Amino acid sequence: MTLRILFSAPPDFWADYAEVLPEALAAQGLQADLAPVGTADWAPETVDYLVFAPSGPISDFSVYTNAKAVLSLWAGVETVVGNPTLTQPLCRMVDVGIAEGMMQWVVAHVLRHHVGLDAHVVNPGHLWKPTHPPLTHERPIGVLGLGELGQVCAKALAGLGFPVSGWSRNARDVPGIDCQSGPEGLETVLRRSEILVLLLPKTPETENILDARRLALMPEGAVIVNPGRGALIDDAALIATLDSGRIGHATLDVFRTEPLPQDHPFWAHPRVTVTPHVAATTRPATASKVIAENIRRNESGEPLLYRVDRAAGY
Amino acid sequence: MTLRILFSAPPDFWADYAEVLPEALAAQGLQADLAPVGTADWAPETVDYLVFAPSGPISDFSVYTNAKAVLSLWAGVETVVGNPTLTQPLCRMVDVGIAEGMMQWVVAHVLRHHVGLDAHVVNPGHLWKPTHPPLTHERPIGVLGLGELGQVCAKALAGLGFPVSGWSRNARDVPGIDCQSGPEGLETVLRRSEILVLLLPKTPETENILDARRLALMPEGAVIVNPGRGALIDDAALIATLDSGRIGHATLDVFRTEPLPQDHPFWAHPRVTVTPHVAATTRPATASKVIAENIRRNESGEPLLYRVDRAAGY
Repeated sequence: MTLRILFSAPPDFWADYAEVLPEALAAQGLQADLAPVGTADWAPETVDYLVFAPSGPISDFSVYTNAKAVLSLWAGVETVVGNPTLTQPLCRMVDVGIAEGMMQWVVAHVLRHHVGLDAHVVNPGHLWKPTHPPLTHERPIGVLGLGELGQVCAKALAGLGFPVSGWSRNARDVPGIDCQSGPEGLETVLRRSEILVLLLPKTPETENILDARRLALMPEGAVIVNPGRGALIDDAALIATLDSGRIGHATLDVFRTEPLPQDHPFWAHPRVTVTPHVAATTRPATASKVIAENIRRNESGEPLLYRVDRAAGY
Repeated sequence: MTLRILFSAPPDFWADYAEVLPEALAAQGLQADLAPVGTADWAPETVDYLVFAPSGPISDFSVYTNAKAVLSLWAGVETVVGNPTLTQPLCRMVDVGIAEGMMQWVVAHVLRHHVGLDAHVVNPGHLWKPTHPPLTHERPIGVLGLGELGQVCAKALAGLGFPVSGWSRNARDVPGIDCQSGPEGLETVLRRSEILVLLLPKTPETENILDARRLALMPEGAVIVNPGRGALIDDAALIATLDSGRIGHATLDVFRTEPLPQDHPFWAHPRVTVTPHVAATTRPATASKVIAENIRRNESGEPLLYRVDRAAGY
């Protein structure tokens, strides 16, 4: 039996997957036809799987009555998880490309702030002014969110000698990381983190989790690094505390509106660095392997990997 | 018997060591009098050890006829190793503060170049232009010099997933690092390194080791990171290859003359980042422990640690 796999993503995605996804399916021993939406004359009820990106053509899943799973190309699923027409199992993407890309972006920016690189990268006065930052073991770092990405980043930072505290809603145990959970644990992490990395999913509970009250708990001059979701931070509260200098800097990769509008105050703020949602991106070759493995598992009766818990929202 | 330890360093060093060095000596069970040059009425032949920084008052060691060792506060000893009056054993400083400081500076700058941070740190046009760098495992790094500092940096980079090649004059074996040696090994490392870190000592053999011919072996657009010694690079050859764009960038922490003169072309070159000799610095608390341990070892008949080989120059 040949599986029918419908590819629903923005038009420019197809070129990246047209070769590597069929290869990955074949490598798993799967017989499959793969087609972008609109190119195959398939009745919706004959589709077995959907490979899905939120900005693609499909938003009504109800016609795919026999689809066995919707496999997201993105790690974040908040724009699709609440879709009432989506009754099929939904799986997030967990791609080594995403994790490694996130890790290198996070470690780069944490070290940049830790060592004070900007003073040398931008030095128009040609000042020779040696200063010595603390050592990694003297700089407490916090990571909010201990999912796959949070754990990879926390472990990489701890591996360089930083003392790392991590926070998650439910208690976790990550070797080498001081793990905190619950509302009190969050305050503990905020009070001690000189550099704070946000890697929480966007859910109703995490929206504006970093508000004025919680920002005020952080050490004087602390730095915020947000490659998670824009909505985790109360933007106005962040700008107020950056204006006052209480928070020393914010490096932000994600925003409530993307691209970040040109009139947004983040662009011109001297204590903000904007990066254009580049911290992590799905890499087609490795993502295709994840999708193919998940289809093979499901066809063999094994549980799907990275299946989204609708109640939790991630 | 109370040891006499003479402290010869620039005047501002003493304040950093006046408390922590006696504490470290006491912690090793040593009875010792410690005095900066000029403050104690000691006949030179009664001095047991010298704690030494090159820019301090002593340059003639011949009068310290009974001194058992000269213990450098600096990792680099090239300004003293050739001193003909120095016949006593000489030890380099190998301080965890130096190693950890060097590691964090090197990893920060390698990741900065790898991820392409500067485009976001300096973005006056507020451009939203996502680009995705390679992943760490796709970026070959070279480390010239596999002494203590080279090994610490090479291992930290390998730990983040970079493929790391290391080069040393004599063959070494460092787990996780592709180790090369000899003149052919040097060419192998240069040909494959997209980012090259220089951590060689300055010796007659390493002076100008990165000359026009060797720079030309490197991949198009490669980046040079030099926290080692200024004299390792032929400055004029480097500027020529940066002008042509063959070498993409150089981040330099050390120079033939320091502070780097204001009229030096490195300052204004768009492909050069100057940092003011901050990559690594001796930390008094940990350096004092190294000195105290070495004196205790020597007094107990154990071999001195980090003793300099005069013939090799390091």
